[in-house]
Amino acid sequence: MPASGGPLSPDLIADLAAAARILAAREVVDGFGHVSMRHPVASDRYLMSRALAPALVTPEDIVEYDLNSDACDPDAPKGFLERFIHGEIYRARPDICSVVHSHSPSVIPFGLTDRAPLTAMFHNAAFLARGAPVFDIADKFGATDMLVCDCTKGVALAEALGEHDIALMRAHGSVACGPNLQVAVFRAVYTEVNARVQHFTHALAQGGPIASLTKEEGALADVPNMTAGMRAWDLWRREIRVETGW
Amino acid sequence: MPASGGPLSPDLIADLAAAARILAAREVVDGFGHVSMRHPVASDRYLMSRALAPALVTPEDIVEYDLNSDACDPDAPKGFLERFIHGEIYRARPDICSVVHSHSPSVIPFGLTDRAPLTAMFHNAAFLARGAPVFDIADKFGATDMLVCDCTKGVALAEALGEHDIALMRAHGSVACGPNLQVAVFRAVYTEVNARVQHFTHALAQGGPIASLTKEEGALADVPNMTAGMRAWDLWRREIRVETGW
Amino acid sequence: MPASGGPLSPDLIADLAAAARILAAREVVDGFGHVSMRHPVASDRYLMSRALAPALVTPEDIVEYDLNSDACDPDAPKGFLERFIHGEIYRARPDICSVVHSHSPSVIPFGLTDRAPLTAMFHNAAFLARGAPVFDIADKFGATDMLVCDCTKGVALAEALGEHDIALMRAHGSVACGPNLQVAVFRAVYTEVNARVQHFTHALAQGGPIASLTKEEGALADVPNMTAGMRAWDLWRREIRVETGW
Amino acid sequence: MPASGGPLSPDLIADLAAAARILAAREVVDGFGHVSMRHPVASDRYLMSRALAPALVTPEDIVEYDLNSDACDPDAPKGFLERFIHGEIYRARPDICSVVHSHSPSVIPFGLTDRAPLTAMFHNAAFLARGAPVFDIADKFGATDMLVCDCTKGVALAEALGEHDIALMRAHGSVACGPNLQVAVFRAVYTEVNARVQHFTHALAQGGPIASLTKEEGALADVPNMTAGMRAWDLWRREIRVETGW
Repeated sequence: MPASGGPLSPDLIADLAAAARILAAREVVDGFGHVSMRHPVASDRYLMSRALAPALVTPEDIVEYDLNSDACDPDAPKGFLERFIHGEIYRARPDICSVVHSHSPSVIPFGLTDRAPLTAMFHNAAFLARGAPVFDIADKFGATDMLVCDCTKGVALAEALGEHDIALMRAHGSVACGPNLQVAVFRAVYTEVNARVQHFTHALAQGGPIASLTKEEGALADVPNMTAGMRAWDLWRREIRVETGW
Repeated sequence: MPASGGPLSPDLIADLAAAARILAAREVVDGFGHVSMRHPVASDRYLMSRALAPALVTPEDIVEYDLNSDACDPDAPKGFLERFIHGEIYRARPDICSVVHSHSPSVIPFGLTDRAPLTAMFHNAAFLARGAPVFDIADKFGATDMLVCDCTKGVALAEALGEHDIALMRAHGSVACGPNLQVAVFRAVYTEVNARVQHFTHALAQGGPIASLTKEEGALADVPNMTAGMRAWDLWRREIRVETGW
Repeated sequence: MPASGGPLSPDLIADLAAAARILAAREVVDGFGHVSMRHPVASDRYLMSRALAPALVTPEDIVEYDLNSDACDPDAPKGFLERFIHGEIYRARPDICSVVHSHSPSVIPFGLTDRAPLTAMFHNAAFLARGAPVFDIADKFGATDMLVCDCTKGVALAEALGEHDIALMRAHGSVACGPNLQVAVFRAVYTEVNARVQHFTHALAQGGPIASLTKEEGALADVPNMTAGMRAWDLWRREIRVETGW
Repeated sequence: MPASGGPLSPDLIADLAAAARILAAREVVDGFGHVSMRHPVASDRYLMSRALAPALVTPEDIVEYDLNSDACDPDAPKGFLERFIHGEIYRARPDICSVVHSHSPSVIPFGLTDRAPLTAMFHNAAFLARGAPVFDIADKFGATDMLVCDCTKGVALAEALGEHDIALMRAHGSVACGPNLQVAVFRAVYTEVNARVQHFTHALAQGGPIASLTKEEGALADVPNMTAGMRAWDLWRREIRVETGW
């Protein structure tokens, strides 16, 4: 059993629990999907709720894991089958400190066809201008139940992610990552919004050119999102506080 | 008048009533549509609410029917015109213990064109990878009011369903089935979500290939849905409990 | 000033006020749109709310008009600019006893192109199988503000409607009619739902055949809607009663 | 530090704060976007909330700016990065007294392709019949973070707007303007609704003609919107009053 990375501030735990509810309220997750946060002191530990619908998560449901996705507490309740997504991304990418996994409906189509790669339709989704690689679990593992349910599959997903901050998972969903909880949530939300905008745009453009953000514009526009994004977080966080009292 | 299959636990009845409200809350049904459950002890009886908008169903509205869809109670209130859908599927398919009939808007188009068969866009809708046959009531009955309003029409629908767990009904709606109430509700919900995703995917793919679940992946991915699907049910059931007190 | 057709039961008035709120709750109308009812005794009078957002209508806002759309009460508050739609349809069509005018967003496109006539995608919208003529105000009146703001324009609209129960108004909206309030509301709601389904269906069919209701099926399927439609009304009416107390 | 244009009635301030919440409730803005109003007495001053999610704005958050977008109060809280959009439009266009900036999702696609210019699909969006120029910030400023974050960029946007009342901003959003707060809000709301209708219409028309409002019809139909639009405002304003008490 791995040792704990040390105690955490109740505010941090509450923010992580609130993030799950925020993603549910924004319809990025439904009964499924999860969000995690790297331990702020012990970089080889991360925090995530037990297996539970995101809209129901409370601070009491947060569990600490090592990067093998083993719980630090021997009495920890059952975790998500796919927590290995998180553990292996944290292992592979020291710059990432928060990960969201979701099946948001507008995003799934971009993992099912190569005719229209997901990219940034507007500045709030600027981070998508760097591209969104597609992870097809069948490439390495053949026919499976599609779940990233062990470290080996988590490693393969992290490899597909590479240096990007988003990966699409074929016939499954996506992961959005960020340097902190607020940015990862912001990116997950605006990936879904951007996907909706992109569906409309492709239909309208009828194969003609689409003046999406260039890579250079994307890099520049991602910077103010890091701070202005906190305005959205403050709004969303407040809604959860009104709902839950924490 | 058929004999009753015997008394049922109040929890079971409440779950069935809640299922109707869950389907309404998820917009799978509106003022119309119904969900039923095979009697847990008497396999030739089933339970379904009286003719009532799903969002209004309470445990008191649940009626017991035999497989001819005759009520066991002589004083039973008026049943749905299309209850024969349920009776004949239970008769033809011993493995099915719950049936949902709905007109969910995203699904109807797949029964109106043969250009794009409904299939599984992601793992939560894995059961669709086996295909979704289309029942056209006009094939056997010519011009009708489209309703499956007697045993003969119910038999024809059950034949079209065959060994599948879903059938589309041309210019009408669909039926989704499962081995228990929770799975049937789960499948009805994710059939609607999957249909929305598939509309977006076809538009994006512009006639190119779509990397949907293979039949083999569908079979494998359907297994964890049987248990993980309970997480969604727990969320949905709790919402109804908060709303109704039962 | 026209004479009143006589007093009305408070229940009838409340139902008409509730119908406006039902249409707003179902997103058939927004801040605009109106529903009316022929006077049950005096067939040359009709009832409609004063100019007011449908979601705010109360029984006190109902005004009686003659078929010239003049108010019977000299102190009646300001009426809708387009009440002539209602007056002239009642004059031209004795069988119609309720009219809904709306700008519901999914329906407008069918009045803007002749490539895809609005028709019945499923049995709940069966009445559309008879077709939906398009009224272009410019045909007779040239460039206008698009409003049916006097009897002459109302007559032209009623002529376009002909023997149908729905007419699309180019670059404006539509009118849905019925033999009573409940059926007109039902048809307005399912016209919007059907329009959404038809958009999806055309996209999916990619120019291929669409197995919509035949005219004969439409006529047959419209019959049970007349009674089963009351189930939807009961649900919607109850929601308004909970909200308003009347 | 610029001098104040003089005190304002509390009702006016409350209406401006309410306008931000109205736009959030209608989903024209989310955590981002802003609405402003020219000072009613001092035409070289304008009013806008501090940098805050629109759904959270209260009368206390309203700040007065000069046309350089400098706050009149030295202790004013931090303003929006893009307030220069407002200042420069007020400077360039004396007839405009209210401006809404938003990233509403259905509108963004019309700034990303030249295949389908945004135009008026129905009378409530009549003002769009005059056309909607696209401002591409890259034309003058090359690769940027896409934000109109200083006077120079604001001037370029105002030039692109020209004599129109709407401008699309490539890969960003749009501005909708009006002679007063109510009309600007009305136009922002119906621009979003119209964009949704136009997406459906293009898909349905498959390249065929679209019978949208002509320029002449648009000019005529815009007139009643100026007054009838108050009916929508009254509805929306009341919802905010119920929610906030002001």
